[in-house]
Amino acid sequence: MVQRASVLLIGNELLTGKIQDENLAFLAKELFALGITLDRARVVRDHVPSIAADLRELTTESDVVFTTGGVGPTHDDVTIEALSVFANRPLVRSSAIEELLARYFGAELGEAHLRLARIPEGAELLNGPEAAWPVLRVDRVYAFPGVPAAVRRSWPLVRERIRGERSFVGAAIFLSLDEFAIAKALDEVSGAFPAVAIGSYPRWGDPSYRTKVTFDGAERAEVDRALEAFRERIDPAGVVRVE
Amino acid sequence: MVQRASVLLIGNELLTGKIQDENLAFLAKELFALGITLDRARVVRDHVPSIAADLRELTTESDVVFTTGGVGPTHDDVTIEALSVFANRPLVRSSAIEELLARYFGAELGEAHLRLARIPEGAELLNGPEAAWPVLRVDRVYAFPGVPAAVRRSWPLVRERIRGERSFVGAAIFLSLDEFAIAKALDEVSGAFPAVAIGSYPRWGDPSYRTKVTFDGAERAEVDRALEAFRERIDPAGVVRVE
Repeated sequence: MVQRASVLLIGNELLTGKIQDENLAFLAKELFALGITLDRARVVRDHVPSIAADLRELTTESDVVFTTGGVGPTHDDVTIEALSVFANRPLVRSSAIEELLARYFGAELGEAHLRLARIPEGAELLNGPEAAWPVLRVDRVYAFPGVPAAVRRSWPLVRERIRGERSFVGAAIFLSLDEFAIAKALDEVSGAFPAVAIGSYPRWGDPSYRTKVTFDGAERAEVDRALEAFRERIDPAGVVRVE
Repeated sequence: MVQRASVLLIGNELLTGKIQDENLAFLAKELFALGITLDRARVVRDHVPSIAADLRELTTESDVVFTTGGVGPTHDDVTIEALSVFANRPLVRSSAIEELLARYFGAELGEAHLRLARIPEGAELLNGPEAAWPVLRVDRVYAFPGVPAAVRRSWPLVRERIRGERSFVGAAIFLSLDEFAIAKALDEVSGAFPAVAIGSYPRWGDPSYRTKVTFDGAERAEVDRALEAFRERIDPAGVVRVE
């Protein structure tokens, strides 16, 4: 069963500020909804040895690793090559991808397109009518393209594969109190409910509330009890709303 | 001279999708403008041993490490404690921060506020009238709060400290061509101009262009020559604009 995951975002553009990443927040939210703990994430340059080293480290501690980016036809797309180095499997030509490309490009199909058909030997392709491009699985690594729309479209294929029995449930309380006014209550409640993850997030420049406190856990009853215990310890006039 | 940097984003909320990070893209862009290479970034949970371990690894390979998040008065704010473990220095009370807090909170000042005055022994505070909160420097680590507005307000204090002589210059060309049509030209030009970093970014669902290609380097003349060499190798009718 998949319990722990990590994410590796690949691309120089994320480390030069040319692109605002959206894939981490998307994958994080989806994994959370599945009850899978996203332990950590990394952002790495388009550099084969660095990507392969990160994959080796992340797969040691996670049941699954998701990569985004570096899948494409240009010189800076090196994820497939890095997967080949990581898994120590040679690159071979995938006839399934070759067919996809031939259908799409017809007579224009050339060497630049066929670069996309290289996969590490034995890699699995997850494809479906909704996907913009197949997700490549090599061992416990799932490789997505970098374009957020493509990640969203392919995600259900992966989700159905890794979905387990667990899921997390959550509650959130919005307060007009600042974090100082609730720090003691948070200390007590987080100590009393170790199975509930409690987060506190100050909000700036929003007249509607000053602090949001979240409660997340595997059991609805336990989450509700933690929320109740917190409410008993704070000024009731400071509660804006509960979600 | 500061040449290589890394970023450590701290907070469970980033790994459960509750918050869309904005700090990495901001710091990446600012470092790029300073000619400092951001080698890698990581996202870690509010967990002291994990944060301390990441700091040890990142400081081994980077001249400076920037952290964001986990600076605050609640139970999930553990960055300062992790810095103390990382640097192997005890937490002491900062009289400078105590004064800040006393000025701000006056008679209301209590233990919850004073938690914010704990710093690793010997840590330096970078503060100024624009800053929402001082940046803490411990060895080669600079710790920012997590709120993006606070990072932006404090950044100039750090920038003036790490600014060197170098800076990067860049150019971008927007094309109606897809990546397949330019893959060969990119291979040739990136091989011929190793000092220029060339990136290729497909755009989906935008009628104005299909691919953006960026050229970045330390020398304006070299960047311009690489751009020219690229233009000579592609269909001129495919150029939408150059920036």
